Amino acid sequence: MTYKLGTMFYEGKAKKLYEVDGHPELIALEYKNSLTAFNAQKKGEFSGKGTINQEISKIIFDHLEKADIKNHLVEIIDDKTSIVKKLSIIPLEVVVRNRIAGSLAKKFQLKEGASLQFPLVEFYYKKDELGDPFITSEQAVAMSLVPADTPFERIKTLALQVNQSLSEIFKNIGIELIDFKLEFGQSSDGEILLADEISPDSCRLWDIKTAEKLDKDRFRHDLGKVEESYQEVLKRLKEAKES
Amino acid sequence: MTYKLGTMFYEGKAKKLYEVDGHPELIALEYKNSLTAFNAQKKGEFSGKGTINQEISKIIFDHLEKADIKNHLVEIIDDKTSIVKKLSIIPLEVVVRNRIAGSLAKKFQLKEGASLQFPLVEFYYKKDELGDPFITSEQAVAMSLVPADTPFERIKTLALQVNQSLSEIFKNIGIELIDFKLEFGQSSDGEILLADEISPDSCRLWDIKTAEKLDKDRFRHDLGKVEESYQEVLKRLKEAKES
Repeated sequence: MTYKLGTMFYEGKAKKLYEVDGHPELIALEYKNSLTAFNAQKKGEFSGKGTINQEISKIIFDHLEKADIKNHLVEIIDDKTSIVKKLSIIPLEVVVRNRIAGSLAKKFQLKEGASLQFPLVEFYYKKDELGDPFITSEQAVAMSLVPADTPFERIKTLALQVNQSLSEIFKNIGIELIDFKLEFGQSSDGEILLADEISPDSCRLWDIKTAEKLDKDRFRHDLGKVEESYQEVLKRLKEAKES
Repeated sequence: MTYKLGTMFYEGKAKKLYEVDGHPELIALEYKNSLTAFNAQKKGEFSGKGTINQEISKIIFDHLEKADIKNHLVEIIDDKTSIVKKLSIIPLEVVVRNRIAGSLAKKFQLKEGASLQFPLVEFYYKKDELGDPFITSEQAVAMSLVPADTPFERIKTLALQVNQSLSEIFKNIGIELIDFKLEFGQSSDGEILLADEISPDSCRLWDIKTAEKLDKDRFRHDLGKVEESYQEVLKRLKEAKES
């Protein structure tokens, strides 16, 4: 199908969103090449990043579909643009952690990579001005930041299912899934769908053999080989798909 | 009964703890006159503060006992020293909020005094070096910071019961209970008891008629009349007790 992009109505840190002419139920999502960290205090980019993330996200969404976990993707129309369903976005970043890392390690001064008794599901309130603060479902409802009928239990269950599938996908290509961030939206008929992307921007991915990081932490902490790592993840995912 | 104080084994921001000779099941808790705020970055004191807080705490604990909410206090032995049961302290500050104020207002940039849909119970991990960070029961267990069998539901229920009783006590003396902090400990037979103190150091108390603050926020934000406010709370509690 051919789509004609309309007005750009939002530009975020890593995406631009456009209306789709004649399709009020869809939006076009353009993957940018920019990289940001620490609430956009640190900025960078590499050419082709958008394309790589779009491809990785597509492969992962296809895998998750097989496990009956649905997402917003309709179709990729060019090397950086996806057509997705317009959803009512739930203003929460849903983080699943299999090991202690990142902000959690820092907050509690615990070792990066330390184990957890069980996978943790956390919510962060999506609000750039506040730096996306950690929030509980109770706080969000009590402070009227989300509707009282926000389906938190459903979201939590979905997030843990994604964790299960995603951990397997990555384990099969020699990568341990340390943690990741999801976003969800509700379709007009009330269905909860995965939104945004799943990529090395939104996951912590450690090579099982070498313990090397293959994700945005390479950019965050100036570890070098940022592009090569994103490409490596894509390469392994593609090889696994073909085999 | 006469108690002889032994070695001081802990000095905190607002208390000193002593062993009690011949009573391994008890400790002596000395109320200091010091005031601290913002994780002890700001320090102050006023003479007699310890005595006032000890008296206020005693009156409140007595009220709560009538509602069958038990605490660690055994006996006050002088104007700044209480004998309390030695408990295994649960390393969580349990905060109950009836309105948005303090750190919650700051974190979400919401108005001090804004209403909540329901009273919020929050946990903070007691660890001075970390600045007592906000934590969920799931995080605490997953990171092995508390035992897996920590009775969170019981603690939450108790905290909400304390809120109910305490809100009434204060309402009767023309004060709105905005929020407060509790600590709990477990006795050797597994009973959960209120520990620490309940005072203007650990509560936000607003005069219902004048909206004046009658708590540690007067010290935190240099509002003046710190001592007078603590005394006012004690005076009203005493008058209500006698009437």
